[in-house]
Amino acid sequence: MNLNRYMVLENEKVDLGEYPTRRDAAADRKEIEEKLMTDNLEAMSDLQERLYADNTYALLIVLQAMDAAGKDGIIKHVMTGLNPQGVKVASFKVPSSEENDHDYLWRIHKAIPPRGEIGIFNRSHYEDVIVARVHDLVRVSQIPGELVGDDIWDERYAQIRNFETHLAQNGYKIIKFFLHISQEEQRERLLDRINQEDKHWKFSSGDIEERKYWDEYMRAYEIMLQKTSTRQSPWYVIPGDNKWYARYLVSLAVRHALEEINPQYPQLAPAEKDRLAECRALLESQAPNEAKNG
Amino acid sequence: MNLNRYMVLENEKVDLGEYPTRRDAAADRKEIEEKLMTDNLEAMSDLQERLYADNTYALLIVLQAMDAAGKDGIIKHVMTGLNPQGVKVASFKVPSSEENDHDYLWRIHKAIPPRGEIGIFNRSHYEDVIVARVHDLVRVSQIPGELVGDDIWDERYAQIRNFETHLAQNGYKIIKFFLHISQEEQRERLLDRINQEDKHWKFSSGDIEERKYWDEYMRAYEIMLQKTSTRQSPWYVIPGDNKWYARYLVSLAVRHALEEINPQYPQLAPAEKDRLAECRALLESQAPNEAKNG
Repeated sequence: MNLNRYMVLENEKVDLGEYPTRRDAAADRKEIEEKLMTDNLEAMSDLQERLYADNTYALLIVLQAMDAAGKDGIIKHVMTGLNPQGVKVASFKVPSSEENDHDYLWRIHKAIPPRGEIGIFNRSHYEDVIVARVHDLVRVSQIPGELVGDDIWDERYAQIRNFETHLAQNGYKIIKFFLHISQEEQRERLLDRINQEDKHWKFSSGDIEERKYWDEYMRAYEIMLQKTSTRQSPWYVIPGDNKWYARYLVSLAVRHALEEINPQYPQLAPAEKDRLAECRALLESQAPNEAKNG
Repeated sequence: MNLNRYMVLENEKVDLGEYPTRRDAAADRKEIEEKLMTDNLEAMSDLQERLYADNTYALLIVLQAMDAAGKDGIIKHVMTGLNPQGVKVASFKVPSSEENDHDYLWRIHKAIPPRGEIGIFNRSHYEDVIVARVHDLVRVSQIPGELVGDDIWDERYAQIRNFETHLAQNGYKIIKFFLHISQEEQRERLLDRINQEDKHWKFSSGDIEERKYWDEYMRAYEIMLQKTSTRQSPWYVIPGDNKWYARYLVSLAVRHALEEINPQYPQLAPAEKDRLAECRALLESQAPNEAKNG
């Protein structure tokens, strides 16, 4: 499976209508679910351990999508096999009053994973050029009015590119996913949340309101994808209508990203290595008598 | 007093030998201590209250210097008159293990002041292009080795410029001070710390070691000043040999920065204003009887 066709090239003009929301015709669900997905999760688990031991690089995964597109399912099904000691999920909701009292990247930068770990952003700084743009939230924010000009969005794309370049140059690999679902698929999933009692907790009538802005959201996503997909921190537009397929593609991209980092177990320093025999002898000499006798 | 001659212009090639370490001949110490300094502190206090009420801009003051140059004295003598509710001092020492596990701007970004407040950085991210450069600390850091190339310092200057531009575009006014003392003045102050018992707590024999690298430090400061002084976030090279003069210049620059922000008390929304008479009447009607009778 070649992921490249889902990757947004640097400066590519994006028309989301040309990106599929459904699985590729050639994808074999049985093979993917029973073999390929398992392979990916096992490879990720091994790579994660080496990433943790190496403790120099970190991987940051950004998830963005319309409501009900399956972000939570991706985290559950793709990341569950990872050692939670090396995984940090950060969910970004409506900013708190303390968060609004700072620049919008403040809460984001605070939440990046430490070296050696995998961070997952469930929503992210990209909300500040998506929902903020669709609803023009900057004009009612605490940013000084005279700093909110017509170029505010271009400024923000540049701020985000610079921020991610800084992170990349300091050892952070970033991959970004837009889960792309059709409006009809969203309708059905929201209906399910209404019709099935055990899904009620996921339902919010606000989601129905936001559906009115579907086209505005698509335009905001298209410009954002064009302006912020870079070679070092690319966006993938993942077809989201078939959950099993979306999860597989994300697992594949995460696996590839970890393979690109190619983390290695650290070597002992030569001086330490020379002392190994000595340390072994010391430990062996401390064996309890009964063990010696047994 | 015109501060411009102490300000580093954007891209100016800096020779610290051409920047004075002593007071200006024309400066009248008595007038400064008894009148001008007091004026500045009073103006700052008034401006701070408006900054806090306005709650959109923040001011960030960065202090960098060689040991014993007077950073702590600046904070004590220039900032003591401010309301501590609106002031945050952050001192950056040798990075902790948790801090080293992130990019070097992580701890810095976390510590910026909230809107409406004044933040003071006692040392800062500039240590990562000063002491880190003089002692080549990046090569023993946790940054992946292959990311540490010959262009690491130019990369960092760019990262810092981008970071500060981002903050400026989001409402953060930044002014930066390098307290410039002569090597002889430092020698005398370190001797004082040895000879006076109540100054022993400030003495560290490591400071004597670092004096050997004086020239390397001056070169690192010169390049850094050239590469990171910008119109929106300028560096001032403050003559530091006369403490009273350095404190006065810093107070003047801080006052000017606050005046440039020009924070205003927020206006009540018209609807709220219309209700003022009503609210007054309500409060007056609740006066206790004895007051009415009295």
